[in-house]
Amino acid sequence: MNLFDEKRIRGLYWDGESLHFIEQTKLPHSEEVIVTRDWRVIVDAIKRLAIRGAPAIGVAAAFACVLAWREDENQKAWNDKLELIESARPTAVNLSYAVRRIRETMQAGDEEDCDANITSEAEKIAIEDDAMCESIAKHGIQLFKPGTRVLTHCNTGALVTYGIGTALGIIQHAWQTKNIEQVYACEARPLGQGSRLTMWELGKLGIPATLLTDSASGRLMQDGKIDCVILGADRIAANGDTANKVGTFILATLASRFEIPFYVAAPSTTFDLNISSGQNIEIEYRDADEVRNCYTHQASPKDVNVYNPAFDITPAELITAIIREDGVFYPPYDFTERST
Amino acid sequence: MNLFDEKRIRGLYWDGESLHFIEQTKLPHSEEVIVTRDWRVIVDAIKRLAIRGAPAIGVAAAFACVLAWREDENQKAWNDKLELIESARPTAVNLSYAVRRIRETMQAGDEEDCDANITSEAEKIAIEDDAMCESIAKHGIQLFKPGTRVLTHCNTGALVTYGIGTALGIIQHAWQTKNIEQVYACEARPLGQGSRLTMWELGKLGIPATLLTDSASGRLMQDGKIDCVILGADRIAANGDTANKVGTFILATLASRFEIPFYVAAPSTTFDLNISSGQNIEIEYRDADEVRNCYTHQASPKDVNVYNPAFDITPAELITAIIREDGVFYPPYDFTERST
Repeated sequence: MNLFDEKRIRGLYWDGESLHFIEQTKLPHSEEVIVTRDWRVIVDAIKRLAIRGAPAIGVAAAFACVLAWREDENQKAWNDKLELIESARPTAVNLSYAVRRIRETMQAGDEEDCDANITSEAEKIAIEDDAMCESIAKHGIQLFKPGTRVLTHCNTGALVTYGIGTALGIIQHAWQTKNIEQVYACEARPLGQGSRLTMWELGKLGIPATLLTDSASGRLMQDGKIDCVILGADRIAANGDTANKVGTFILATLASRFEIPFYVAAPSTTFDLNISSGQNIEIEYRDADEVRNCYTHQASPKDVNVYNPAFDITPAELITAIIREDGVFYPPYDFTERST
Repeated sequence: MNLFDEKRIRGLYWDGESLHFIEQTKLPHSEEVIVTRDWRVIVDAIKRLAIRGAPAIGVAAAFACVLAWREDENQKAWNDKLELIESARPTAVNLSYAVRRIRETMQAGDEEDCDANITSEAEKIAIEDDAMCESIAKHGIQLFKPGTRVLTHCNTGALVTYGIGTALGIIQHAWQTKNIEQVYACEARPLGQGSRLTMWELGKLGIPATLLTDSASGRLMQDGKIDCVILGADRIAANGDTANKVGTFILATLASRFEIPFYVAAPSTTFDLNISSGQNIEIEYRDADEVRNCYTHQASPKDVNVYNPAFDITPAELITAIIREDGVFYPPYDFTERST
């Protein structure tokens, strides 16, 4: 299995016995694949951000549960291992969701069919994720016309899902249907998911792409170089307010000023209907050293104060449409009426 | 002379015989001063960006002209040297302006008083620059109230002038008059003039300061942490449209949305009254490698396309007030009516 296939990059691949995954911490400097039957290697990869992105973490965790069972087929030991898998990352909803599904499958099935049952469930989680990406792309490409120049932010592609990705999956389909002229990607300081990962994915796929600093997005729109913005989401409230990589709100504000469509692409699992609006979404503030350093290089005086939100909130009023696996939604948004 | 004095940082200092300057390329990692009587060292420093910022370049060039004369007091050789000094940086208006003043002083004065005349003229350029900063600060502090939390961008302090700076000079005065609670500084990717230089200056002066990535400014305003924005300008059109470090337009757009005052501080020499509006200001696009790398570290796949504007244009309608050495100006702006 070539995970770096130019027609279809795969961040993760399960061959029935081993999990193959791209070592994301080495990108874009070197392209390495790890093939493992050891659940501990997967837990470590999730901790090290070698596997990252909520859907990808969920799928990898499901297969880690399977491999943990196969190690010695001991129920008590397995339950302990599941706790370790579940705690690999603190805030990834998909992780605990996947582990819970595998645990419940084990409890519900015959003892003799344990391996087959949980393997089948893990494969189902992966297949569902892949299908979700395809459905989002199918709906999303309706919004693209020939010659579209699109701006995106952070990384939403094959590396973060078991499929082709969310916003970047749409872009890939739109490219294949000859509707993309150019993709612009913000670098997404401090960790550079745009410069390191999205630019790498787009390059692999042969899609024409241009990198810019996060502060150049305003000039890009002033220059008239953008027809639409499309990006992903970390959490979406019932009213459509969207938490996503910090800087998303800036792009939405600018797009509104220039009357450029601003699209959010996300699976229904990203919607948190217990939250009525963005004001109730808690924002993660991350380590100061991410900003004090440019990767390995010291970028400011040591120990300066740092304001480092990982996300910001984009009010629903600034979002032209939200694309899910079940359709394209326009304002006013009220997702409480829809089952997810 | 201690250029790192905590009450008054000096990027440049002329002692009558030598020019002292802070080696800016080493900041914030080490604090080094170069003391030289060699005009070639100054030209090299301007080229290497060891001395940078339009006013500082102009003052340094003036003293380079004096030192070039003192080398052998030969008119013909001196004219050749002046051409080399003038071409140290291609677009710095202050550089050619300073060299022209020194050349004209030489031509207008007695041959016997050459040294005294041009030295006096160079010192005059420096003193004028220092006084300009003080006047801007005097007018600017009127806009600050106790407890102000201010956001700034790029570097506009002592390092770029012969005085205390423009926007950062106002902040320094406002701090001394107990009107500053906190200064927030955007890092200003790709070259980090905010993270490397402004954070260093504020730290030296003991002013409470916090660093953020350029993409976090929207969240900062969502958080309600900012009372006003103040920054400098590279060129201002007759109608107030302002070209400044890329990202400035984003901050102005956000400030407008949140009804936060957005101030520009600049000397009258920054105004280009031949230009009626920002649409006629040409924007410099800089080397792609600045963005492909985070300082010395490769940050994206090699050779990706890059969109790297150095500046953007902020429409006058988004600027609450413009602070010059001759006062504070409010919209509608028409600077053609004012002699500069």
